[in-house]
Amino acid sequence: MALPTSPLAVPMPELPPLAGVRLGSAEAGIRYAGRTDLVMAVLPEGTTAAGVFTRNRCPGAPVDWCRAALAHGQARALVVNAGNANVFTGRAGIEAVNATAGAAADLLGCSVHEVLVASTGVIGEVLPHAKLIAALPALYASLAEDGWLAAARGIMTTDTFPKAATRTVPIDGSPVRITGIAKGSGMVAPDMATMLAFVFTDAKLPAPLLQDMLARGVKRSFNCTTVDSDTSTSDTVLLFATGQVAHAPVGRHDKHLVREFRDALDALLLDLALQVVRDGEGAQKLVRIDVAGAVSNKSARRVALAIANSPLVKTAIAGEDANWGRIVMAVGKAGEPADRDKLSVGVGGTWMARNGGVVLGYDEGPVVAHMKGREIGIAVDLGLGTGVGTAWTCDLTHGYIDINGNYRS
Amino acid sequence: MALPTSPLAVPMPELPPLAGVRLGSAEAGIRYAGRTDLVMAVLPEGTTAAGVFTRNRCPGAPVDWCRAALAHGQARALVVNAGNANVFTGRAGIEAVNATAGAAADLLGCSVHEVLVASTGVIGEVLPHAKLIAALPALYASLAEDGWLAAARGIMTTDTFPKAATRTVPIDGSPVRITGIAKGSGMVAPDMATMLAFVFTDAKLPAPLLQDMLARGVKRSFNCTTVDSDTSTSDTVLLFATGQVAHAPVGRHDKHLVREFRDALDALLLDLALQVVRDGEGAQKLVRIDVAGAVSNKSARRVALAIANSPLVKTAIAGEDANWGRIVMAVGKAGEPADRDKLSVGVGGTWMARNGGVVLGYDEGPVVAHMKGREIGIAVDLGLGTGVGTAWTCDLTHGYIDINGNYRS
Repeated sequence: MALPTSPLAVPMPELPPLAGVRLGSAEAGIRYAGRTDLVMAVLPEGTTAAGVFTRNRCPGAPVDWCRAALAHGQARALVVNAGNANVFTGRAGIEAVNATAGAAADLLGCSVHEVLVASTGVIGEVLPHAKLIAALPALYASLAEDGWLAAARGIMTTDTFPKAATRTVPIDGSPVRITGIAKGSGMVAPDMATMLAFVFTDAKLPAPLLQDMLARGVKRSFNCTTVDSDTSTSDTVLLFATGQVAHAPVGRHDKHLVREFRDALDALLLDLALQVVRDGEGAQKLVRIDVAGAVSNKSARRVALAIANSPLVKTAIAGEDANWGRIVMAVGKAGEPADRDKLSVGVGGTWMARNGGVVLGYDEGPVVAHMKGREIGIAVDLGLGTGVGTAWTCDLTHGYIDINGNYRS
Repeated sequence: MALPTSPLAVPMPELPPLAGVRLGSAEAGIRYAGRTDLVMAVLPEGTTAAGVFTRNRCPGAPVDWCRAALAHGQARALVVNAGNANVFTGRAGIEAVNATAGAAADLLGCSVHEVLVASTGVIGEVLPHAKLIAALPALYASLAEDGWLAAARGIMTTDTFPKAATRTVPIDGSPVRITGIAKGSGMVAPDMATMLAFVFTDAKLPAPLLQDMLARGVKRSFNCTTVDSDTSTSDTVLLFATGQVAHAPVGRHDKHLVREFRDALDALLLDLALQVVRDGEGAQKLVRIDVAGAVSNKSARRVALAIANSPLVKTAIAGEDANWGRIVMAVGKAGEPADRDKLSVGVGGTWMARNGGVVLGYDEGPVVAHMKGREIGIAVDLGLGTGVGTAWTCDLTHGYIDINGNYRS
């Protein structure tokens, strides 16, 4: 299935080497023909690692594996395959993960618990891990510092463009780099860490601090986005710190030293998360929803996500209809405190409804023009308190139905 | 917009007169041209009434009106318009309701609080109630015992077929009749009483008992169905008892006298609710989801609804793909207790996955044949307890996008 590139695609940034990381991809023939589907990254001794995973109650075997392995806080290798999620595969799934980690550990001469694995693709089919393991030695021999684009491409499934982001930021005066790649386009919902994202830095940071920063960053990025309200069984975000830059030592509680780093990490995670939304299955428009005036920030975020998940709002946006009545409906169904008669709704900077009723005679011209664009802004003021929150989604189009009515065929 | 009739449509049953009820429809020209859009029913003195309404926090003015009016437990008239929901219309909305109820009360010579009103259609546009009131006297003069089909047609919006059901059942040996009409096809989600349904009986029953029975019946019918997970701002189910049959007196707590009546009412409400799902926007298949083995009935129902609301499950069904991996995903995202390794999933009577893994070598033939049908059955056994629950939905097709990307144009 060759999908046209999303009209919302952004170009890959140039990704310079990141000290300590070598990576690349190979064709293991797991599901797809004529494209890479296996990605490996290797990391130097002393690399620390953190992870955030799906909250789906039926996670895949790779998610179970990573959760357990990260108790050690160390990593030497990452192995990812596309095309088969290794989810709901029972004992065969566990065996596939054990064998994959074992094969990678043999190549590197490290512990199996220093190998992290991730899989994405169809659910419920046994992963043919023999193919994966057969492809691993040649892939390992080919890894390079400049393998970023290859890796970003190799983890794609229904994605139509590769996703990556990079930042440089000082820690106590010494510049460090953060680079991440991601994949995702469907089965993307906020109650999770979204599809797959792998972020690397050459900073030297203790694993618990990495974990704190990653959890915070994911909450503000991936967990504020939704494509279709369906929470994947495979969502995984991993953060690795190779420790190759000789900056001032940072202890677990030295948050003041990593404030800039943390902000750059937050920005990078949001960048990756929005690239996933931009590649939402069938997406023609990127939608940002800002909610203000809620009783709390949490309440605002829930209202924003209720709007973002409403099929009627999303189809209206696809139809370039600033149907604020459907936005009112979605506010009301969120289950959060809302007072119809204090509610205001705006699109593209024009308030269409204020304090419970339509703004009679508002200028439709700028609203109509805004709806024809690629990036749509919705503003809601609940008029109750000071809570604010933002969510991002895409529109719901025929493309979504095309892709998902035919995924396995 | 002339939509083709749903392939899941069922024929209107023959609806004999129901003692005490006269009803009919008229063209008020509120929004649609060349079709009826105003419905009125009148009821004899002594008629008791009950209602269940949307839980959306931004309900329409008609919902506010009915909630207040039903405190009296009496009704003499019902006025319903299609094409404009009179929601989020501020003071103008309240004035429209007051004026409509006042005009009907004048015609009948009853209290305004004995007039119930309902509106369905576009949100956020002021209801041109002068047109409605102008059409009311002639409509009132034309009401008849045999106006059921006209009424069922007059309340339709994007519905493609009129919806009605009738039952006859004894109360203490005396036969009474229950007849209901309904409308709904989109913005239909379970956290509510779904779009509009009006049910009449010639039994003589106290209003509090009616309310108890209606609330129970709605919970087991409309609230187990979903088309698109979007909860309307106008959902209204009303139940009227005209008291024209001279059966044994029934007090509020005489539940033993109305057991058969209650069961018939439950069945009728479910009949109407499933007609709404059958007319779900773009629906090509009716889907029933039975969940067993949950820790409680409530938990089972939530899991069933999570499956019913999953866009990926619904698009897979549209594609005639028995994609049980997506069913596993939806079970896991429901937030209810689930153990992946005890989970079983079946389609059309064939178990495809058992205890956490695919049933190797299961016979795909009957599954493929079942998926090509109009009525799809999904079974899930969580393997945890004795809780059971059922939900109904339809598939998600291009038709839904067509209808909702163009609703206001």
